[in-house]
Amino acid sequence: MSLLVVGTVAFDKISTPFGHSDKIVGGAATYIALAASQFTKKINLVSVIGDDFPKEFLQEMKNRSIDLQGLQIKEGEKSFFWEGKYHYDMNSRDTLDTQLNVLADFDPVLPESYVECDFLMLGNLAPSVQLSVLDQLGNRPKLVVLDTMKFWRDIAMEDLKKVIARVDVLTINDEEARQLSGEYSLVKGARKILEMGPKYLIIKKGENGALLMDRDNMFYAPAMPLEEVMDPTGAGDTFAGGFMGYLDNSRDISFENMKRAVIVGSALASYSVEKFGTERLLTLTEEEIDHRIQLFVDLVDFDILLVD
Amino acid sequence: MSLLVVGTVAFDKISTPFGHSDKIVGGAATYIALAASQFTKKINLVSVIGDDFPKEFLQEMKNRSIDLQGLQIKEGEKSFFWEGKYHYDMNSRDTLDTQLNVLADFDPVLPESYVECDFLMLGNLAPSVQLSVLDQLGNRPKLVVLDTMKFWRDIAMEDLKKVIARVDVLTINDEEARQLSGEYSLVKGARKILEMGPKYLIIKKGENGALLMDRDNMFYAPAMPLEEVMDPTGAGDTFAGGFMGYLDNSRDISFENMKRAVIVGSALASYSVEKFGTERLLTLTEEEIDHRIQLFVDLVDFDILLVD
Repeated sequence: MSLLVVGTVAFDKISTPFGHSDKIVGGAATYIALAASQFTKKINLVSVIGDDFPKEFLQEMKNRSIDLQGLQIKEGEKSFFWEGKYHYDMNSRDTLDTQLNVLADFDPVLPESYVECDFLMLGNLAPSVQLSVLDQLGNRPKLVVLDTMKFWRDIAMEDLKKVIARVDVLTINDEEARQLSGEYSLVKGARKILEMGPKYLIIKKGENGALLMDRDNMFYAPAMPLEEVMDPTGAGDTFAGGFMGYLDNSRDISFENMKRAVIVGSALASYSVEKFGTERLLTLTEEEIDHRIQLFVDLVDFDILLVD
Repeated sequence: MSLLVVGTVAFDKISTPFGHSDKIVGGAATYIALAASQFTKKINLVSVIGDDFPKEFLQEMKNRSIDLQGLQIKEGEKSFFWEGKYHYDMNSRDTLDTQLNVLADFDPVLPESYVECDFLMLGNLAPSVQLSVLDQLGNRPKLVVLDTMKFWRDIAMEDLKKVIARVDVLTINDEEARQLSGEYSLVKGARKILEMGPKYLIIKKGENGALLMDRDNMFYAPAMPLEEVMDPTGAGDTFAGGFMGYLDNSRDISFENMKRAVIVGSALASYSVEKFGTERLLTLTEEEIDHRIQLFVDLVDFDILLVD
């Protein structure tokens, strides 16, 4: 199977109540691809960077079988840069600086070898860019997953609606689900969003876990309570990458298997937030992933006889 | 077995983004006792009301085997009254009016038949009142559970510490757990709080569920995503009542059984919020409870083979 990942490859500078980073590597596609590479070995990446991006990091991605033919490198230009500061609750953050740089006029071009893909992960980007990728595909992938943010709803709602109508799974946080649907109840909100196109909805709740829903089923995956949370940046992308990598590897897109993929994605995200940036993902081992998945199994395990 | 419930029996007036109530019956002990009465038939209640409290409601409680000998009725005085307005997120609220009335000088007196009890639920009240009840007991109950709020930490921290040191289970919301422990991480915070006395901690997360923790174990119970949430008032008390009623009835205070009790409490709370005040609790049937417990079982159910 193969996974096509579209999103930013970029620099971040992050401060949280517990520390701060220098300018480090970030970007949705970076987290997604690194997380997915734990499970699947055919990952194609579409993004754009400047010539300021560290060559060693690109080599690190190639070592993980992440194909970079679709990564445009613009000579004499700079990579996308985001600087942010998290509040004490770690669920909200302020953007201190955004420099679009190469992202300003990003025109994604799919290499010939990317055109047929089994799984497509559209990481957070302008909806017009996401649409362009969909239009370049030679086949309909088995599963298309879209991640997006409130920002695009505010400035590009029409394009966003078009993308949403063409995907199978939408991942979105709970506040955004409420805004997008105009419903406080996530059950009612999900129903409305599912009418916009997707067959599945994943509502991300940060430290409170994630909800996977389709028209008939609902699954609640908790988040792992952690000793240390250093940096939530990329947690949602890591989750999506683990989710997609697991599905691509297991070749099964039933609701039952998506539940497993949600747990796997949650396990990876729970590691990612323990250190700044992608640091923790780069050292993560299979044994560690297995260990944390077992903790998730234990965390929600109970047996109950119904009250008679 | 027997359950002693201490807390307010009072009036509330509530507005939420989805409606508002008249002056209706509320109070922590009311919700706790009504919820517990689904599971156990020996409930003793300690509280205070004025002569303005509806007799029919007292009869309703008696019909559910809730003993009211410990309920002081002050002639010529008024019951405690609270008026509040929930914000759109339903997790935060503003107090619009508080009239202490009979609660201002409440001196709890345990009837002789209450002095020996198996389970004690100390609902939210002044810590000095909770201490007075503990001092009047003739035995050490099998399990003492304390619910408290930030308010008491601000104005009666010394007394609160004394109560916390004498209970087995503390229930508290996540924000309060962070404030009480001074730790952002709930894992670290729980460890600190468990050093203050309790053997178990239940961190309530509202629409995001609840965490049960002791020094070695952690259990995450989700909240049920609901079609309608009309009024969150009393959800925590209903949870506590279901938890205690289930434990009292099953006579088992192992961690495994507490996990079941947490699910039962969550199921009852998920019904309580569907209507204003105690309305939904008063019509709730065993079949409905069983049905929702089954939904909780399904909500978190997954099976996963570890990644090889």
